[in-house]
Amino acid sequence: MHKVVCLPRLSRVAVCGGTHGNELSGVYLVRELLKEEKKAMEEEEEEEKPVSVVLVLSNPWAIQQCRRYVKTDLNRCFTHASLNGPLSDSAPYELIRSKELNTLLGPKGSPEAVDLVCDLHNTTANMGLCLIAYSDCDWICLHTFKHLQASTNIPMRYIHFDVPKEESYSLDSVGKHGFAMEIGPQPHGVVRSNIYTAMKFGVQHMLDWVRFFNSGTIIEGGFVDVFTMVKHIDYPRDSETHNIIAAIHPQLQDRDFCLLHPEDPLFQTFSGETLRYKGKEPLYPFFINECAYYEKGIALSLARKRRVMIPAIRVQTEQEQQASEQGFGSEEEE
Amino acid sequence: MHKVVCLPRLSRVAVCGGTHGNELSGVYLVRELLKEEKKAMEEEEEEEKPVSVVLVLSNPWAIQQCRRYVKTDLNRCFTHASLNGPLSDSAPYELIRSKELNTLLGPKGSPEAVDLVCDLHNTTANMGLCLIAYSDCDWICLHTFKHLQASTNIPMRYIHFDVPKEESYSLDSVGKHGFAMEIGPQPHGVVRSNIYTAMKFGVQHMLDWVRFFNSGTIIEGGFVDVFTMVKHIDYPRDSETHNIIAAIHPQLQDRDFCLLHPEDPLFQTFSGETLRYKGKEPLYPFFINECAYYEKGIALSLARKRRVMIPAIRVQTEQEQQASEQGFGSEEEE
Repeated sequence: MHKVVCLPRLSRVAVCGGTHGNELSGVYLVRELLKEEKKAMEEEEEEEKPVSVVLVLSNPWAIQQCRRYVKTDLNRCFTHASLNGPLSDSAPYELIRSKELNTLLGPKGSPEAVDLVCDLHNTTANMGLCLIAYSDCDWICLHTFKHLQASTNIPMRYIHFDVPKEESYSLDSVGKHGFAMEIGPQPHGVVRSNIYTAMKFGVQHMLDWVRFFNSGTIIEGGFVDVFTMVKHIDYPRDSETHNIIAAIHPQLQDRDFCLLHPEDPLFQTFSGETLRYKGKEPLYPFFINECAYYEKGIALSLARKRRVMIPAIRVQTEQEQQASEQGFGSEEEE
Repeated sequence: MHKVVCLPRLSRVAVCGGTHGNELSGVYLVRELLKEEKKAMEEEEEEEKPVSVVLVLSNPWAIQQCRRYVKTDLNRCFTHASLNGPLSDSAPYELIRSKELNTLLGPKGSPEAVDLVCDLHNTTANMGLCLIAYSDCDWICLHTFKHLQASTNIPMRYIHFDVPKEESYSLDSVGKHGFAMEIGPQPHGVVRSNIYTAMKFGVQHMLDWVRFFNSGTIIEGGFVDVFTMVKHIDYPRDSETHNIIAAIHPQLQDRDFCLLHPEDPLFQTFSGETLRYKGKEPLYPFFINECAYYEKGIALSLARKRRVMIPAIRVQTEQEQQASEQGFGSEEEE
């Protein structure tokens, strides 16, 4: 007898691209999905959809300029404090836009928020397809991941940023559930067909899973690996100019999620010297040499891997949902 | 009996980085060379160098912002017309800077110009190391290339842009001889150790060759392959929005310098359709999916390959150089 966790229906899902305006897979994928949606609306009768999908181009001004952001990183503007602070006339564009998106998809933390936000990103790091989320016990996010991982040969990982709910800062935190879908390697400002296709696959299978979940079937549990972010490492820098004086070591470059041991090569200085990893614990590197993180002082991030048991789940019946909204429990034995 | 072409000594060589501010290998390499130069000057007695090397960070403002350019592409500002036109108070930064660089390294076309300009660039395309020049009969450029190609296993090509001298537009055209040293693949705004090392190798071997040439040795001739640019191909675009509707086909991506035949796959649309190459002549693609060329409307360039015979050369003696400056010939039979 396994415990089956009953969870509310996922009626509204948001798929967002261009939160960073130079991460092009998401921009072109959302545009393509908008085109398909328009075509379907022209061709078909209006019919009720099992799930409503909101398609969003998050930062249109940055997309137009093919830049990560115009004034400030939009994907850091969704903290509780930022969303609920005052908005002056001279507020940066992205702060204004974050409040618009919060109105459209949230408000964050409210019952009106969309059920799931999937925010599309690219990285220059060799990370394959990753779901990045704030929780290691959000069964919706973890089940989506498990389903995607079982559906493809693309290397796929779940990254957990251990940040308290109030301080969660990215667009996907506006939904009741949410994650960033991060795919690389791809240079920013470039669209590579293989990366675009992998993202399209990821979004389609995510939506398939949501429909499957909504259908009422019991979805089996099991184990998944979760990478929890432990710390960031900056590039070695010149103490006067603050310029970097080394690049990621060739033996580490492109080896995201390959265990880094103490004394393994970490950097190679521009004069040719090898600098080694001085940590005491072997950890998993990721976001190795991500372009946008030079300015954030991050050469790579390090994670601990843990196996998480996720329970079987099924969608609540309408009765259960009503009961749950009145404050009753939502777990049952099968 | 082979004809040996006698050419003037290469006394002053310029190595330039950061003509595009987000192509980081050149930026970090020039900074490193400046550091080495400073150290050498502190440690050593002043001694006469066999060749004087001018190290230049071409576009400091763009480097600071890690952008290709601030107002306009600096590497298109060095035409005869642009350099000799008037400079208004509202002139874009790069136009002002191009005139400064012309004063420092030129004036273009004058006897005072540096003997050789090596301008360092990166591309997101899988091009290995390329020398890009305007001439297919500049023996200095072609001999440098031949020497580099013989010294390494890095894939290495010579690209010839068939543009009249007056219209040559890039920084390297300011020198008596000059080429861009283009290396990829590397995302812009990123430095990869392997690409940095390949560029460092290229610059060091280029300078070694210049010293070797200046030493007076006869340098053997031979054949080299030259890729002459024939035409550019743009991405397929939406007729209304002008947005691109396809990416480079996965079968073409990263296959720079692999012969493209009529009917070979060229693009894959965002809905999954394959578009084919409709040209009648097989040609060699390069700059496939270069980030900076999206705005220029170039998805890839196509070249014809030709084998060029280059003669043996040696540096002119002082007497020959004086005679040559007085208008006498500079070729001899050996």
